[in-house]
Amino acid sequence: MRALIISANGYEESELLVPYYRLLEEGLQVDIAAPRRGAVIGKHGYRVRANLSLREAEPERYELLVVPGGKAPQALSAHAAALSVVKRFFDSGKPVAAICHGPLLLAAAGVLKARTVTAHESVAHDLEKTGARYEDSEVVVDGNLVTSRGPADLPAFMRAALTLLRAREAGEFAAAAV
Amino acid sequence: MRALIISANGYEESELLVPYYRLLEEGLQVDIAAPRRGAVIGKHGYRVRANLSLREAEPERYELLVVPGGKAPQALSAHAAALSVVKRFFDSGKPVAAICHGPLLLAAAGVLKARTVTAHESVAHDLEKTGARYEDSEVVVDGNLVTSRGPADLPAFMRAALTLLRAREAGEFAAAAV
Repeated sequence: MRALIISANGYEESELLVPYYRLLEEGLQVDIAAPRRGAVIGKHGYRVRANLSLREAEPERYELLVVPGGKAPQALSAHAAALSVVKRFFDSGKPVAAICHGPLLLAAAGVLKARTVTAHESVAHDLEKTGARYEDSEVVVDGNLVTSRGPADLPAFMRAALTLLRAREAGEFAAAAV
Repeated sequence: MRALIISANGYEESELLVPYYRLLEEGLQVDIAAPRRGAVIGKHGYRVRANLSLREAEPERYELLVVPGGKAPQALSAHAAALSVVKRFFDSGKPVAAICHGPLLLAAAGVLKARTVTAHESVAHDLEKTGARYEDSEVVVDGNLVTSRGPADLPAFMRAALTLLRAREAGEFAAAAV
């Protein structure tokens, strides 16, 4: 299985690093896509390497999309390739996990209408303006979508994302066995 | 179950954040101890909060000790309370997981004689001088001790630490059932 993390400079370090290493621990292959390949610098200056540009990222190849928070989601909201990646994940119904300011990118892609989400409280109103219902919880799961408020919610966020991924994997095995 | 992370300013961000959130996800309570309670600042400026000073940390209360890398382990090597915490974990045979420069603190505590370990390659010679056998692997498990070389090894490091913890837990249950 493969997961895709999309981000940009200004990402919140824990919200990218924890999912990245956790998914690798789980045995997934994990790609990081950013506006350009190469160094991506977090809010505090931590560097990770994007091994793909957003244009190179093909949603069809992945089972999970992760959108960390920080300043990156706002920047990506003006980026056509990022919006396209998000839309294609939602069109396919594949799991999407967004945390903190991450849901802002989903809102910009127009995929949050009538969806229940959480996020950093400072963006609740922006999300509601695009049709989302905001809930103040450590994690909200609505269909294929997992959202959380910030770093302190990472344990619940990862638990929910992995549960969704395993359920989907089990469903695919079941479907294949029919 | 409870885990203790000991660190100081200059810690390597991923090596503290990933174990911290991973152990919480697993349902453990996790304390962070540093020379003083309060803000601890990573190599890149990321802040976490130490909820205990090293003097307040009581090894008897924990099932696992984690020592992240970065510049912190060298600093802690001159800190009597840090050396005492390490020695008491080793005396009790409880799991200890140290990554990157983390094993330097174990060496300073004098607990690596005839132990097989890995670590950041730049400290291999320092570890060998205290009697350790150095092996260049993503993870080395020697009795109660788990060691890894750096951030890229975090998935294997966490897998091994959790395996050791679960085995110990199972053993305790078995002992309790006798």
